[in-house]
Order: sequence, then structure tokens, then C-alpha cells
Amino acid sequence: MKVQGKAQQTIWFEDSKVKIIDQRYLPHQFVIKEIEDVQTMATAIKDMWVRGAGLIGVSAAFGMYLAAKNGNDLHKAADLLTQTRPTAINLSWAVKFMLHKLHTISNPQIKENLALKWAQQIAQEDAENARLIGQHGLPLIEKISKIKNGEPVNILTHCNAGWLGFVDYGSALSPVYAAFEKGIKVHVWVDETRPRNQGAKLTAWELGQQGVPHTIIADNTGGHLMQNNMVDLLIVGSDRCSRNGDIANKIGTYLKALAAADNAIPFYAALPSSTIDWEITDGLKQIPIEQRDAKEVKYMDGKNALGEIVEILIAPENSPAINYGFDVTPARLITGIITERGIAKAQENSLLKLFPEKQKFPNDLSS
Amino acid sequence: MKVQGKAQQTIWFEDSKVKIIDQRYLPHQFVIKEIEDVQTMATAIKDMWVRGAGLIGVSAAFGMYLAAKNGNDLHKAADLLTQTRPTAINLSWAVKFMLHKLHTISNPQIKENLALKWAQQIAQEDAENARLIGQHGLPLIEKISKIKNGEPVNILTHCNAGWLGFVDYGSALSPVYAAFEKGIKVHVWVDETRPRNQGAKLTAWELGQQGVPHTIIADNTGGHLMQNNMVDLLIVGSDRCSRNGDIANKIGTYLKALAAADNAIPFYAALPSSTIDWEITDGLKQIPIEQRDAKEVKYMDGKNALGEIVEILIAPENSPAINYGFDVTPARLITGIITERGIAKAQENSLLKLFPEKQKFPNDLSS
Repeated sequence: MKVQGKAQQTIWFEDSKVKIIDQRYLPHQFVIKEIEDVQTMATAIKDMWVRGAGLIGVSAAFGMYLAAKNGNDLHKAADLLTQTRPTAINLSWAVKFMLHKLHTISNPQIKENLALKWAQQIAQEDAENARLIGQHGLPLIEKISKIKNGEPVNILTHCNAGWLGFVDYGSALSPVYAAFEKGIKVHVWVDETRPRNQGAKLTAWELGQQGVPHTIIADNTGGHLMQNNMVDLLIVGSDRCSRNGDIANKIGTYLKALAAADNAIPFYAALPSSTIDWEITDGLKQIPIEQRDAKEVKYMDGKNALGEIVEILIAPENSPAINYGFDVTPARLITGIITERGIAKAQENSLLKLFPEKQKFPNDLSS
Repeated sequence: MKVQGKAQQTIWFEDSKVKIIDQRYLPHQFVIKEIEDVQTMATAIKDMWVRGAGLIGVSAAFGMYLAAKNGNDLHKAADLLTQTRPTAINLSWAVKFMLHKLHTISNPQIKENLALKWAQQIAQEDAENARLIGQHGLPLIEKISKIKNGEPVNILTHCNAGWLGFVDYGSALSPVYAAFEKGIKVHVWVDETRPRNQGAKLTAWELGQQGVPHTIIADNTGGHLMQNNMVDLLIVGSDRCSRNGDIANKIGTYLKALAAADNAIPFYAALPSSTIDWEITDGLKQIPIEQRDAKEVKYMDGKNALGEIVEILIAPENSPAINYGFDVTPARLITGIITERGIAKAQENSLLKLFPEKQKFPNDLSS
């Protein structure tokens, strides 16, 4: 997608180097960072210089490439990367895939070359799958636009599942970008997404860069908007989807799904199939929920009057806080799941119809 | 309740002066401010130096006293005060009541004396009703405590409906304080309550001052906690309750009520009867929802590393935001309404059983 009018991806290989947009500085500063070793890539994932289900998978794959290039033990590198973020499955999938492809190769130069090839392929597939999600989701928006006689379609999203969460295009926002490009009037309600504010910081910024109309709201606001017919459609991303269609996504997603159901508004999850964990059948019981530093709740960063990025305390110093990163929205609240192969119901048989090869080989790493 | 171990109320008359806790500085600084005229009181209400359904009613009553004392036109003073905050009914009730009692009195000294008497009576009633709400809510917590064999009862609350929102005791927190005082183990999940963070700033602070165990959470977190059996009971306050038991409360309350219903957890609203608008029968359609400055969403204040209170920008400069102050939770999602006369179902006939005098005279200002 575009940054100041120029095409840009979130991670790329250039002049023999792995480069990322360092998302910690958005929306106030656009910073590009070079990552030179797997340790730094692990930090970049853990401390959210890069984030988003798709992007942390691709970043981990490039982390494995850096480990191969620097002659590190690949099993240790895989462990290091896997431990950074427990909830999103794309990460562990990408690490396992890279290890599977590389662990039997002894020649260092061949290993490095192959690692780069596979990391780049994962990146390319991530971008292409995100683009396809946009094409499959587009008709949902088109249909509402027609019903509304071309009045803006109001889409609510939570967190950032835009191109900043993938290599390009995004998952939840990809259909929005596809509709916008086609000239369909859209308007996005952007949940700010406490505690890390990926909505206000990242989603608002990337929508603004593409020129898509949007409005930032406190996470508390969506229910009121839905009660008052101000939301036509919800689309969110996902960090892990169970075989039966439960989705783990940024904490707070479940509350929006409840409000959507209570007001009979369609609620979709958009995700590449790499997000589906075919080995689990109960998202609520089986998806591990990451617990992050309480500091993210009690402190907030932003730009002060002098233009400096500073951190402020927003709660009593001595009050404890707790910080769960994700929640699980049960399949019963999900209207459909938008994937790179089309839209499925949030049901095992419907997902398997789109991905029949997973019936027999849920864990296949060969492709 | 207590501040640094000493008894304190939120508004009081002392040395011929009206004094308030200026809540803008909490939790970082405890500031007491003298209010000398009705204009300043209107600003104090509008800009939330004082806030909370009960407290803004009492503050408005003292505003009318200041107008009487300073010889201002009482009808103009009433208009000024009524326009500050549209959603909470306690405010317009208190202003109407004061006007009703004072508008026929011409002797300035008698008018001033009576105005003070009535303002003080409203304040006293506010504190007493809040205390009674605590006594009526207490058995709910006691019962859960017994079922849990004395393990801590986990209570989730949204916004601040503690003593800082009233003259004393609070509404939602009054039963918590009553239980805590009785030695029952309680633990409060404090929704931070974006965008103004009354939970993180005020509820956490006042619970901390009384020594009540609590944990601050992002507003997004409650659903996950409820799904995982970490919440036993929800109690919230209200800014206006319709005759049929719909409640307007801080934006985001509706989302928590949905999650409580989805997980079969009791959800109570605690409110003095002055919060009930007996003239309306449909909260969703009839309660006006205040829209506040978008700046409250895009900027955040807190304490920087130097200990100064500063404001920071937390979103892209050019992205618009919208800021609704309240939402309406329909009666069907409310387990019960805790009032100063006992607990009613969220139904007209049940509320009228507690307040039979309202059957015939919903607008009576004589008492």
C-alpha cells in the first residue's frame, strides 16, 4: 500500500539486508530499521516493532534466514522466535516450516540461499493471500453499498488488521481497500484498541495514507453505534482460528461480536488460512492467551507539545493492572470467515470445503 | 469515605464557602477548590472538575445557592446549569427543585438562606441514599462470598460510580465498601473507562485509599475475564434510568452487560431514585446522549517522568474522532436495580413497587 503516495511493504529484502517499518514510532514518525540477526528479530517481534498475525510470521521466517546466514543453531533460533508471541499461529507455523526445509542442509551457503528463498516465498504468499482476501470480501461491501444506494458503507474494525499487520493489503482492511479502489463509498469506524492503541496509531494512520474516510472511537463506543444503525458491517482479523471457526483476536473483539449479534449486524473475520490451527477444535479452551506487561495499561506514549514522543502514567502508581492480549470469539457469533480461497461459514465442514487437503493432513508442512 | 485516612466528602460548605475536590488532578494530586459563583460551578460541571450522576446534581444545587447568594437571575442560572451535561437527570432534577423552592421568594437574605438549606439537604440525601444502596446491595456480595467459601468475590465495574461520583459512599461501589467493611473478601476489576479514564484515575484511586483490593483493566478485557469465570458480579452506576428500567451509563456499559448475559453473570445497576426519569418509557429512544469533544479521544493526560501533568497526542493529527459519553443498556440485560429502598427488577411494575408515589406523580418536586 502507500506511504506518502509511494508503494511500500512492511518487511522487505534490499541490498542484501532485511528491512522493516519500525511500527513503534507510528503515527508520529515513519522509521525504517535494518535487522541484522535473529536475536534482534526476536526482540522486534516480542516488543512489537513488527506486529500483526501475518507480519510476525513473515518476520520470524526472515529471522530464521538471518540465523542461517549468521551460522546460528537453527533449532535454538526456532525456539527463540517461537517463544516471542504465543497466541498467533502464523509465527509458529512459519518457524516450523523454515526449520523443516533447512534442518537437513549442511552446506552453509546453500542453507543461507534456501532460507532467503523460502522467507521471501512466505512473504510473497502473505501479500498475495491478503490481496485475495480483499477480492473475496469486496462483494460483501458492494452488496451493502447497493442496498444503501451508494451512501457510505460504515465498517467497524478492531485493532490493526491492515497492511501494517501483513506484508501488504491486510486481512480485515483488504476488502475495504478493494472497495475504496473500486470507487465504492466507505467509512471505517476505528476502535482505538487499548491498551496498545493499534487502532488509533496504526489503522487510522494507514487508512489516512490511502485517503480512506475513517473516524477513531474509544473501544467502548461500538455498541452505541450499532444500537443506532451507524454500523453496516464488522470485519476483524485473527491471530488464530480453530478448526471449528472460533477466532482469537485482539482483546475486546468478543465484546464487539456480541453487540453485532445483538443488533443483527454481520460480523466477519478475515484471515489467511495460515491463521487456521487445524489441530484444535475449541478455541476458548485450547488457544493460549498471551499476557503482556501491566505497564502497557498504566502508561501511555504519545507526542507532547514539543513534538517529542514521551510516556506518561495514567493511573495511580500503586494500583495493579493486568494485560491480556487476546480474547476468543466463539464461532456462533461469527457470520463468516473471509479467506484467500473465499468465504466460509464459521464451521468445520464449511472451512474444510475451502481447504479439503486439511481433512487428511492438518499438519502438512510440505507446501 | 477516606483520603489518606481522613473522612472526606466530594463537596461541602465550610467557612461560608462551597468547596469541592477538583477531580481533574486525581490520581496524581489531591486538590481542593473553592467555588464562588454559578458561572464557575457551571464550568466545573461541564469540564468535569466534578462528575458523576449524584455529584453533578448536588453541585448544580450549590450552583443555584451561589446564584441566589450573588443576586443572579435564578432562571438564567438554572438554564446555564442545565445545559452543562444533558444525559444525567439528577442535574436537571436538582436545578428544577431549587428553582421551584426559590423562584417566588423576593427577600434576598431569605432566598440565600433557603437556597443553602435546600442545597445542603440535597447533599445530605445524596450521601444517605448512597449509604442505603450499599446496605441493600451488600447481601448480593455476601451470598456469593458464602457460595465461594470466603474466597474473594470478583466484582467488575465500569467508570466511576464510587463516592467520588456522589457526595459520599457512591452507588456501584457502595455495596463493595459495605462488604469490605464487614470483612468480606472482595476484589474489584476496574475498567479504565476510555476516553476520560474515570476508572483508572478515580475508581482505582478511591479503592486504593480505602484499601480495597483491585486491578485496573483495559475496557476490552471484561469479556475475556467473564468467559474464564474470573467475574462473579457486575455493578455499574447510571446517569439516567427510564421508567421501564433501561439505563444510560458511561459509554461501554452496554458491551459489558452483553458479556454478562452471555456468560450468565449477574449484572446490577446501582442508583438513587433521583436517577430514575419516570417520564420516559424507552431509554434507547428517549435518553439524550451527550457528545463531547473529540480531543478527549485523541489526547491523553498523565504524569511524565518529571512528575508534571502533561497532555500527549495519541493518534494521527489529521484523523477525526468522535466521542459519545454514554450508551443505553436495555432492561432485558439487567438482573436488578439497587436503590435506596431495596432491589427492584428492571421493570416498571417492580420499580413502582418500591416507589409507589411515582405512579401518580412522576414529576413531583415537592419532596
